[in-house]
Amino acid sequence: MRIYDIIIKKRDGHELTSEEIGYFISAYTSGEVPDYQAASLLMAIFFQGMNHKETALLTQFMTDSGKKLDLGSLPGIKVDKHSTGGVGDGISLVLAPLVAACGVIVPMMSGRGLGHTGGTLDKLASIPNFRVELSNAEMLECLNKINVVMIGQSPELAPADRKLYALRDVTGTVESIPLIAASILSKKFAEGADALVLDIKTGNGAFMRDKKNAVKLGRTMIELGKRQRKRVVALVTDMNQPLGEMIGNSLEIEQAVTILQGKENPRTKSFIELTEKLGGLMLYLGGKAASPNAGQKLIAQARADKLGLETFRALVKMQGGDPRVCDAPQEVLPQAKYKESLVSPWKGWIMEMSALSAGKAALLLGAGRSTKESAIDLSAGIRLHKQVGDRVERGELIADFFSSTVAEFTYASAAFSAGLKIGKVRPRPRPLILDVLK
Amino acid sequence: MRIYDIIIKKRDGHELTSEEIGYFISAYTSGEVPDYQAASLLMAIFFQGMNHKETALLTQFMTDSGKKLDLGSLPGIKVDKHSTGGVGDGISLVLAPLVAACGVIVPMMSGRGLGHTGGTLDKLASIPNFRVELSNAEMLECLNKINVVMIGQSPELAPADRKLYALRDVTGTVESIPLIAASILSKKFAEGADALVLDIKTGNGAFMRDKKNAVKLGRTMIELGKRQRKRVVALVTDMNQPLGEMIGNSLEIEQAVTILQGKENPRTKSFIELTEKLGGLMLYLGGKAASPNAGQKLIAQARADKLGLETFRALVKMQGGDPRVCDAPQEVLPQAKYKESLVSPWKGWIMEMSALSAGKAALLLGAGRSTKESAIDLSAGIRLHKQVGDRVERGELIADFFSSTVAEFTYASAAFSAGLKIGKVRPRPRPLILDVLK
Repeated sequence: MRIYDIIIKKRDGHELTSEEIGYFISAYTSGEVPDYQAASLLMAIFFQGMNHKETALLTQFMTDSGKKLDLGSLPGIKVDKHSTGGVGDGISLVLAPLVAACGVIVPMMSGRGLGHTGGTLDKLASIPNFRVELSNAEMLECLNKINVVMIGQSPELAPADRKLYALRDVTGTVESIPLIAASILSKKFAEGADALVLDIKTGNGAFMRDKKNAVKLGRTMIELGKRQRKRVVALVTDMNQPLGEMIGNSLEIEQAVTILQGKENPRTKSFIELTEKLGGLMLYLGGKAASPNAGQKLIAQARADKLGLETFRALVKMQGGDPRVCDAPQEVLPQAKYKESLVSPWKGWIMEMSALSAGKAALLLGAGRSTKESAIDLSAGIRLHKQVGDRVERGELIADFFSSTVAEFTYASAAFSAGLKIGKVRPRPRPLILDVLK
Repeated sequence: MRIYDIIIKKRDGHELTSEEIGYFISAYTSGEVPDYQAASLLMAIFFQGMNHKETALLTQFMTDSGKKLDLGSLPGIKVDKHSTGGVGDGISLVLAPLVAACGVIVPMMSGRGLGHTGGTLDKLASIPNFRVELSNAEMLECLNKINVVMIGQSPELAPADRKLYALRDVTGTVESIPLIAASILSKKFAEGADALVLDIKTGNGAFMRDKKNAVKLGRTMIELGKRQRKRVVALVTDMNQPLGEMIGNSLEIEQAVTILQGKENPRTKSFIELTEKLGGLMLYLGGKAASPNAGQKLIAQARADKLGLETFRALVKMQGGDPRVCDAPQEVLPQAKYKESLVSPWKGWIMEMSALSAGKAALLLGAGRSTKESAIDLSAGIRLHKQVGDRVERGELIADFFSSTVAEFTYASAAFSAGLKIGKVRPRPRPLILDVLK
């Protein structure tokens, strides 16, 4: 079998066989197929696509390319959640403890942030001494005792994906639905999840800008799940404005704690709504609720009863962090040296607050990585005082910017303001949850 | 400037600027841009194409990527010919001496054969001691004295093309009209030709199987020539059956000598016709004939007067070969150890004689290279006794196979026969020259 023939076959629009896809994954992972041939095949896949059968095979060979976690010793259905990434999307921090508190096992493996979207791992790393790398034994102990663990992806899981993702990232082949679907699911299948709830973001702050493609990605992953006998449900949610009140690593931990403490405000309302929706689905898939709606109510109750807060406290403790973060987050988490506020230049309604612009502003403040090697300022970020649809007076506070270098405020506020539209007409309310795919 | 942005821009169907194309060529040639990013850009170009402006810029940057030959010291218009490659296409061996004998300077640089198509360099190498690598001084001396030189491409000319071609060859990105056009013309512009006659082969034995694409390639190259103020004329010619009587290296030299001696037979008739057509155009572009037709007559006369033969004799001598090849080619050229004949299994007309099948058979006999590193059996090949349209009786000779290993005859005759159709109906004559593009 020659990789050259496989490239030509896909380039010319033909379906690849199981043998061809298997050969590509194993020979690329082993280094037998060089990067330049893999890159041209990926670009051919970008243009010609892959049908469900090919994508399922690709996912399976990627799943099988490394070790797989065996969670069979744990009773019950293991359910994970994956978001395709957005600005202010710290949902997992609240969701995982709540779902675990309701009795479903959540083996959550997350990634680091890149570009204008944050990563759950970076947020957790802002809790002093929190360890995102655990041994297998430690991980199983967490899952046994508190039903949840939040760790980084082991390099031994789905190594084909790790290598392919790095190549796609530099060769312009990220935005391909079969490649995205196989990348996400190969990791989730390798980590031992039985069911999966997906939050597919769409809008200017997401990498799927177009809703149609987001739906297509969701449907593809549901189909792939079926073929592996794993239940997959996907929400398609809006990412045209930041989610919640906070953007930044320690800021989003602070927000998560506040929400787990049972508090809420107008800016965190839709964040909580989405958490409950996702949590309800996870409890339903995990067999702990008779319907997604019933699950949603259990999640809301667990939050009101502070059960999620206690699970999060236990998780922080078991993973080496300071559990006082659950009582006085600002005392435990790194705090920014400088704060600058952005006020409204005139009165009106907030018509637009671009998630992309807000994400770029947070990146400029130091909250994210421009390249894989960049260091992060964990305390940097943005607290929003307004969101789309809010009335604002001249001089009224719109956002606070936090950074450890005062020099960045000018660029960050310019980037943020570029995505801000204040108008004379009250905008129509826009839904956060656009579609539920089953 | 980042290659990543250039990949995305082309992938998404936008026109690249001069700066972007220039950056790609210089950074790839210098090694700053790695193969895997170049490969994904090439595949994006394969799918999205390039307009004439982009292709002209690509050609120019590739031409300028290395040294350029300065033929300014030689008087008159320098004219070259390029064929996209076929089976039995030894036209250059006859054409270059004839055109030179008629007073036009022909600085001919050729390549080696790969796959089922032969290369002029390999054919010349079958003349004992013939040197295809000359110093600049030797080359200029040849051009000065006899108007012609036939050499290999210097690695210093258009190094970007050399590197890109090697990458395209292994990444499935050869069959792209802008990339093919830029590759051919960058070399021809760097070698100092003022005008160019192209022979674009189409059919099962050519890499442009489809006539429409062959015409498109021709029109692209004519347009690129205009933008560089170089006159380019293109013939589109049939490559569904082998050209001429001989396929193989020393066999095609023998055929060339025979034709230059003024001889012809039914199998070499269309070979000679095409030579005269191409030569007429070259004389016209070189200012030595008032029209292509007038040029054609001059070429025919030069052949009748054996002026081409004398020029070829001088060329062989100046380039170190044995000039007796012009008198007794079989005594000078390597001769195959074994000969096997293929006869017709029944009577009828030759309906098809596939160039691809004949080329593959010649490859099996040892006449070509399967990979770049393969050695060639210079004496191996095929002599055709029939061609499409000929009447054949049962048991009548169709072809002789020559090889130094008798074991190959079975495979070779099977490959050849797979492309042979003998029918009961006389096929309509098919023209060799399908189109003339100016």
